[in-house]
Amino acid sequence: MRVWELRDGFAPEHLRLAERPQPQPGAHQVVVAMRAASLNYRDTLLIRGGYGARIRLPLIPVSDGAGEIVAVGAAVRRLQVGDRVVPLFFQRWQGGAPDQQKMFDSLGGPLDGVLAEYMCLDADGVVAVAPHLSAVEAATLPCAGLTAWTAIVSDGRVGPGDTVLVQGTGGVALFALQFAKLAGARVIVTSSSDAKLERVSALGADATINYRTTKDWGRVVKDLTDGAGCEHVVELGGAETLERSVRAVRIGGTLSLIGVLSGAAAALPLPLVVMRQVRLQGITVGSRDGFEAMNRAIAAHRLHPLVDRVFDFGAVAEAFATFDRGGHFGKICIDLATAG
Amino acid sequence: MRVWELRDGFAPEHLRLAERPQPQPGAHQVVVAMRAASLNYRDTLLIRGGYGARIRLPLIPVSDGAGEIVAVGAAVRRLQVGDRVVPLFFQRWQGGAPDQQKMFDSLGGPLDGVLAEYMCLDADGVVAVAPHLSAVEAATLPCAGLTAWTAIVSDGRVGPGDTVLVQGTGGVALFALQFAKLAGARVIVTSSSDAKLERVSALGADATINYRTTKDWGRVVKDLTDGAGCEHVVELGGAETLERSVRAVRIGGTLSLIGVLSGAAAALPLPLVVMRQVRLQGITVGSRDGFEAMNRAIAAHRLHPLVDRVFDFGAVAEAFATFDRGGHFGKICIDLATAG
Amino acid sequence: MRVWELRDGFAPEHLRLAERPQPQPGAHQVVVAMRAASLNYRDTLLIRGGYGARIRLPLIPVSDGAGEIVAVGAAVRRLQVGDRVVPLFFQRWQGGAPDQQKMFDSLGGPLDGVLAEYMCLDADGVVAVAPHLSAVEAATLPCAGLTAWTAIVSDGRVGPGDTVLVQGTGGVALFALQFAKLAGARVIVTSSSDAKLERVSALGADATINYRTTKDWGRVVKDLTDGAGCEHVVELGGAETLERSVRAVRIGGTLSLIGVLSGAAAALPLPLVVMRQVRLQGITVGSRDGFEAMNRAIAAHRLHPLVDRVFDFGAVAEAFATFDRGGHFGKICIDLATAG
Amino acid sequence: MRVWELRDGFAPEHLRLAERPQPQPGAHQVVVAMRAASLNYRDTLLIRGGYGARIRLPLIPVSDGAGEIVAVGAAVRRLQVGDRVVPLFFQRWQGGAPDQQKMFDSLGGPLDGVLAEYMCLDADGVVAVAPHLSAVEAATLPCAGLTAWTAIVSDGRVGPGDTVLVQGTGGVALFALQFAKLAGARVIVTSSSDAKLERVSALGADATINYRTTKDWGRVVKDLTDGAGCEHVVELGGAETLERSVRAVRIGGTLSLIGVLSGAAAALPLPLVVMRQVRLQGITVGSRDGFEAMNRAIAAHRLHPLVDRVFDFGAVAEAFATFDRGGHFGKICIDLATAG
Repeated sequence: MRVWELRDGFAPEHLRLAERPQPQPGAHQVVVAMRAASLNYRDTLLIRGGYGARIRLPLIPVSDGAGEIVAVGAAVRRLQVGDRVVPLFFQRWQGGAPDQQKMFDSLGGPLDGVLAEYMCLDADGVVAVAPHLSAVEAATLPCAGLTAWTAIVSDGRVGPGDTVLVQGTGGVALFALQFAKLAGARVIVTSSSDAKLERVSALGADATINYRTTKDWGRVVKDLTDGAGCEHVVELGGAETLERSVRAVRIGGTLSLIGVLSGAAAALPLPLVVMRQVRLQGITVGSRDGFEAMNRAIAAHRLHPLVDRVFDFGAVAEAFATFDRGGHFGKICIDLATAG
Repeated sequence: MRVWELRDGFAPEHLRLAERPQPQPGAHQVVVAMRAASLNYRDTLLIRGGYGARIRLPLIPVSDGAGEIVAVGAAVRRLQVGDRVVPLFFQRWQGGAPDQQKMFDSLGGPLDGVLAEYMCLDADGVVAVAPHLSAVEAATLPCAGLTAWTAIVSDGRVGPGDTVLVQGTGGVALFALQFAKLAGARVIVTSSSDAKLERVSALGADATINYRTTKDWGRVVKDLTDGAGCEHVVELGGAETLERSVRAVRIGGTLSLIGVLSGAAAALPLPLVVMRQVRLQGITVGSRDGFEAMNRAIAAHRLHPLVDRVFDFGAVAEAFATFDRGGHFGKICIDLATAG
Repeated sequence: MRVWELRDGFAPEHLRLAERPQPQPGAHQVVVAMRAASLNYRDTLLIRGGYGARIRLPLIPVSDGAGEIVAVGAAVRRLQVGDRVVPLFFQRWQGGAPDQQKMFDSLGGPLDGVLAEYMCLDADGVVAVAPHLSAVEAATLPCAGLTAWTAIVSDGRVGPGDTVLVQGTGGVALFALQFAKLAGARVIVTSSSDAKLERVSALGADATINYRTTKDWGRVVKDLTDGAGCEHVVELGGAETLERSVRAVRIGGTLSLIGVLSGAAAALPLPLVVMRQVRLQGITVGSRDGFEAMNRAIAAHRLHPLVDRVFDFGAVAEAFATFDRGGHFGKICIDLATAG
Repeated sequence: MRVWELRDGFAPEHLRLAERPQPQPGAHQVVVAMRAASLNYRDTLLIRGGYGARIRLPLIPVSDGAGEIVAVGAAVRRLQVGDRVVPLFFQRWQGGAPDQQKMFDSLGGPLDGVLAEYMCLDADGVVAVAPHLSAVEAATLPCAGLTAWTAIVSDGRVGPGDTVLVQGTGGVALFALQFAKLAGARVIVTSSSDAKLERVSALGADATINYRTTKDWGRVVKDLTDGAGCEHVVELGGAETLERSVRAVRIGGTLSLIGVLSGAAAALPLPLVVMRQVRLQGITVGSRDGFEAMNRAIAAHRLHPLVDRVFDFGAVAEAFATFDRGGHFGKICIDLATAG
């Protein structure tokens, strides 16, 4: 089968098409014909060597994908040939609190990722795709979707009438907006682009803030919440926005800290965190239980993930370059059905 | 001021119009000109003596109402004359888990209730009314609304994609339907009346079951949830439906036990509860914290409570008789502004 | 290897010694030389056919055991030959809320149990044994220990100063007493035997009630808790004690419903549950996450499970007969090291 | 009555003995004859003007005290003359999540504090004293005790077998050690003084680290927890220790951020917080519900708070000077019974 792999070193230009043997399922495994992939910041960081010595080559990169089962092992009970599935990013985090064991086996490094015609996975390592989703849409869920779900629902427990501030319009941010709306929350989105803010308004954002032109967005949040501050901030800006986020959240409120996979330390206004009894919660993807709950919500509401652009299997380098340039609204995806 | 009171005994025919002195606020109190009241099953049970020796006469009955502040005590900070407010049913349950102290002071027995031109209340015993609500709509919230909110949100933590079964179309049931929809859930409602089921469908119910014609509604719930059962049952039927509710809920699911204020013991299928790890949670109204969260949700979604019929102050007996006959869809209310 | 199995039908007299081929580990599996087993009510019910058609013959019975790893599969990372381990009762419940998938594969039916010289198990299906425990002591943990841990800690969140009522002196009850003491709670134990109550006092019970001579034990609990009732009841008596347990628990308190695997429905005093806002939670064993937390506590406190009597491998029938007669205090165990 | 007050400005030398009229209780109030007070860092900061313009003069300083009821208002039900009580720091935080209203009225600024012969308080603003405690011991609880209880129990939910790292040997730290031991945890304490570490070992600390001589204490914590890190850090060191605390905690673990009432921003290693899914929770004292649970635990375990030294009413300046010099182990208290 055809795959993309890093073999000779960590850099975008080391991405090579290669051949690997067609996998056969073990007793508790399934083989999935991959149909689509979706890029995350983690992928672009990883192919540049940003995850250090733990990642060994050769490696098939990219964490998020979707496909269709073409073979099942003898002991597999719950799945059958033809089922459309997505692989879990953390293959062995079934449920409950995270620990080292559950977070060890992740796709797209250290385990091989999704840029392949076929993947062989434990039956417990895949979840079903909601019927109304295309393969490309489903491929956006494992990291970007589930991270937002964990922040808003599993961990954040956002409820009707809560106010949620979402920073930016990246992949996780757009899912956070969509899920917070499903949960009945009011959502405020920040961006430096008025064009993108118009698009999030169309998606249901209740208020938008251009942080270029409105430096003091904490004040805007206070004004929108009778002076109390919002219940929840989905903190995607990292070091630059942390202090302002702490000021924008209500007493006893929560900041979900997401996606800050590199960068220097952030300045945390400790006295304010203590006196306002703020909770800061680091979030990294989530568990199979969370994914299945997310799937139920996506199916019940016929929610569609936002896809900006889809590249062919052969155009992986171009897909990464587009991702790295930024400016997209919705996910950058790859149509793996074009691999053959 | 004019009030309705029970003086000579517990029976509907003992309800009498009476005069009481106009109240003056203490330092931390407010006086509220009452505008509307709303009846609950508790009220009709109480005026018949169903709450036993703890309730002393004379008593102004009825727990739920709404009004406008006309005087504030010297130490009151947060409220002012003209504010529209509703009194809390449990005057001293501010937040946190319930206990005997918090549940001691409840309106409409043992404390005087809302069928009066004016009430004098602690400033901490009232909450603001969402601007888009009429006084009659606001009067439906303290018991019926907050009980449903506690069951669905504060305690139940229903989230997007969950399936909630609501039994019947009474006051709490209709709020439970409305709040579960705000929270992104799928809602199934049972009733013996096709006409009422049509109305709940119009309100957003995703599926309805006439339990007269569909005896095995547990099976219907299973079919609607891929065989797993629903996440949550709002159990309002009491002894008759308990066993079937336990069978309809998923492994690890929750039954909110509500409103069963009288009646014999119910048969609980213990082995099933244990093996399916079901949670049963008794619910009685809720706290001020819950009320304020509910208010935020009602305001954000401009949700309107369902009112069936509004009676004049003089027609309290007729209001009770209408309530007791049943058949209404939405709350039976009283326009207290007609008292003067 | 030698095993005990049910082959020809469900009855104690159908238990037969048999030979099975020595197992070899798959890539993610380990082979465990079994050293000890421990009996639970589930085992005696199951060998009599109490679990119905889902259990297929031939079957190696008994759920709880302990042993030592003698072979590991090629892909096993975390474990090595010589490690002392116990198998999880629910082989695939890693963590999080229970569901049908997680509860499907349980040892001692439908999967083969521990009455064997060797078991072949998924590496994720075993947990380490605390160093200070004997194999016999470790063998008491998978069902009896973990069920009590789930009730008291994982789900019950019993804390310092809470009062816990434990019904009886069976296997789960004694663990519940031990774990509640570790958590800083005051513990009240009921029994019909003064001799057993003396023994639980020696184990740290703060108060004891002989329910034969003290019918109104709810009153005793109230007296011991300033009239409020206890925070938690570990309900092991089933239908007979449920109502009194509801009366003994404080407003907002919890009943853990355990071990009622058969029997008729219980009479639940619904109005009391609702008005007192009691929570009833069905408990069935627990997850791997819970087991590992329990292990940490057992190791940190050098806690020893209570073992009443240990039978040889050849005396399994006598062990069951002793279990069925009752009267023991601590677990009935089997020394599987005597199998060879 | 005699009181200490700040009248002419914020500085220790402005503390003056003064006369105030003897208070009379309102209907829902009690008058408490104060018997003891206890100093916190907040008090020494406040008398120097560290809380800004919100604090108005004249003010009776100091938040924590204990006394005996000498008069009760007509409507007070739960309390009587002779009851020994402590005032809540947050007079109106009964339970549930914090908000601005609940945190508004705090003793020792903006409300008058405990350095007085008598205090007039709402009946809901005092809690009972466990019988085995002296007034001086009880006076240590409202801020220092309850903050530790909230961190360890109400919010932290530390359980048996968890490992808790407590930074330092200040007032909150010693309570955190005591409460974590009650909850069954293993406790590691850091200090720069071997003498103090000996004393915490005598109090039950399972391990101690002198952070002067052991710079890499994160490594020690890892070694003591099989490489996983501890479940909980009680972070009292602020900016200097935050990063090392994040490194010492296990994946999914919690840092309670306490007592950092001033000082610059701290450097937070965001990538580590995100990848390890650490929770940071700001803690400020706690609610009445928490206090009552703490009281139950203190009474059940006959726990004694640690008192370093008790000064006479006339020696308040000396008490503050001793507090400011540091070096004490246990609380610095004042015997208010010597006021008369």
